[in-house]
Amino acid sequence: MQISRLTQQIQFIIEIDKLKQILRQTLLTDGSRQENSAEHSWHLAIMAVVLAEYAPEGVDLSRAIKMLLIHDLVEIDAGDTFCYDVQGNESNQEREAQAALRLFGLLPADQASELRSVWEEFETLQTPTAKFAAALDRIQPLLHNQQTQGGTWRIHSVTRDQVMKRVAPVETGTPELWSFVQQLIEDCIAAGYLKDAPASTPAK
Amino acid sequence: MQISRLTQQIQFIIEIDKLKQILRQTLLTDGSRQENSAEHSWHLAIMAVVLAEYAPEGVDLSRAIKMLLIHDLVEIDAGDTFCYDVQGNESNQEREAQAALRLFGLLPADQASELRSVWEEFETLQTPTAKFAAALDRIQPLLHNQQTQGGTWRIHSVTRDQVMKRVAPVETGTPELWSFVQQLIEDCIAAGYLKDAPASTPAK
Repeated sequence: MQISRLTQQIQFIIEIDKLKQILRQTLLTDGSRQENSAEHSWHLAIMAVVLAEYAPEGVDLSRAIKMLLIHDLVEIDAGDTFCYDVQGNESNQEREAQAALRLFGLLPADQASELRSVWEEFETLQTPTAKFAAALDRIQPLLHNQQTQGGTWRIHSVTRDQVMKRVAPVETGTPELWSFVQQLIEDCIAAGYLKDAPASTPAK
Repeated sequence: MQISRLTQQIQFIIEIDKLKQILRQTLLTDGSRQENSAEHSWHLAIMAVVLAEYAPEGVDLSRAIKMLLIHDLVEIDAGDTFCYDVQGNESNQEREAQAALRLFGLLPADQASELRSVWEEFETLQTPTAKFAAALDRIQPLLHNQQTQGGTWRIHSVTRDQVMKRVAPVETGTPELWSFVQQLIEDCIAAGYLKDAPASTPAK
C-alpha cells in the first residue's frame, strides 16, 4: 500500500463532504426544507436497487449505482442549476467539466480517469446504463413534487410541457415505468399540483 | 409488471425520504451542522467505491454498497443512538428489529426478505462484507472529528479508550487501513482533539 495513494483517496473523501451543502430546488417529501445533492444521490442509489427489475437489457446495475452516487459531485464547484433554467444549464456545461477535472483529479490517476468516465457516460446519456440512471434522476423529483402538492412546480410556475420534456428520458431509460410516470403527471394535473398549460415565460 | 408491486416499491421509496431528517451526532467537516443519516450513507457508499482496493478477500463489493445504503434505514423508526451511549444501544436493538420489519415490509415480500437479510448481515458483523462495511462506518466519523478539531469527541468528552473500542472493527474489516486509523488517532491526540485518558464516567 502506498501511503501517498491513500492520502489522495482520503482527501477526495473529505472534499466530497461539501456536496451535503449543495441545495437543490426539490423539497423533502414533507416540504420542511430543500433537499441537498448528497442525500438526493443516496435516494437515487437506493431507487436503483429497489427498481432494478425495470432496468432494460444492457444496464450494468453496479455501474448505474456508482454513476448515481457520483453524478452530482461536480456541483461542489459548479453549483446546482435548476433543471428548468435553460440559460443556466447551457453555461453550466463548461463549469461542470472543469469541476470534474478538479474533483476527480484529487484521486490517484487510475481512479480519476475511471470515475470521470462514469460521470461523462451519465452526462452524454447514450448507454442503457446512463439512460436508466437518468430516468431515476427524473422520477425522484416527480415523487417529491407530488408529495408536496406541487412543491417546486408551484413555486416556479412550471407547466406540463416543461415536465414532459424533462421526464422524456424515462421512456427510453426504463420503458416499463413510462406509463406510471405519465399517470403520475396526469394525477398531479388533476389535483392542481401542476399547470396544464404551455409556459408563457421561461421558468428561471 | 404488476401495478401493486410497483406501488409497494414507490411507497418504500417515499417513506425512506424520512432518513434525511434523522440527525447524527457527527458534524459536517466544516462544523456547520449535524450530519443526517441519508447523506452519511451516501458518503459511506462512495467510500466503498474509492477504497475498494483495501477490501479483503471474500468481500462482495456490490453487496457492501447496498448494505451501506440501507444500514441506517431503521433509524427512521428507532432514531439515531450515539455510538458511545452504552445503555441507549442496548435498548435500541429491539426497536431497530421492529423498524426493519415495518420498513422493509413495505416492499414486495421477496425484496423485503432480501434487504432485511442484507441489514441483518451488517448488524451481526460476521461476514467479510459486513466487516468491511462496518470498518468504513467507523472510519468516516473519525475523519469528520479530525476535520472539526475534535468535533463530537470534545462535545461529549470522549476518550482514546472509547474511540479505540469503537474503531476495532477496522482491524479485521480492512486490515490494510488499520495503521492509517491508528496514526490518525495518535495525530488527533497530539493535536488535542481527543483526550488521552480513560473515561471517568460513561459518555451519554
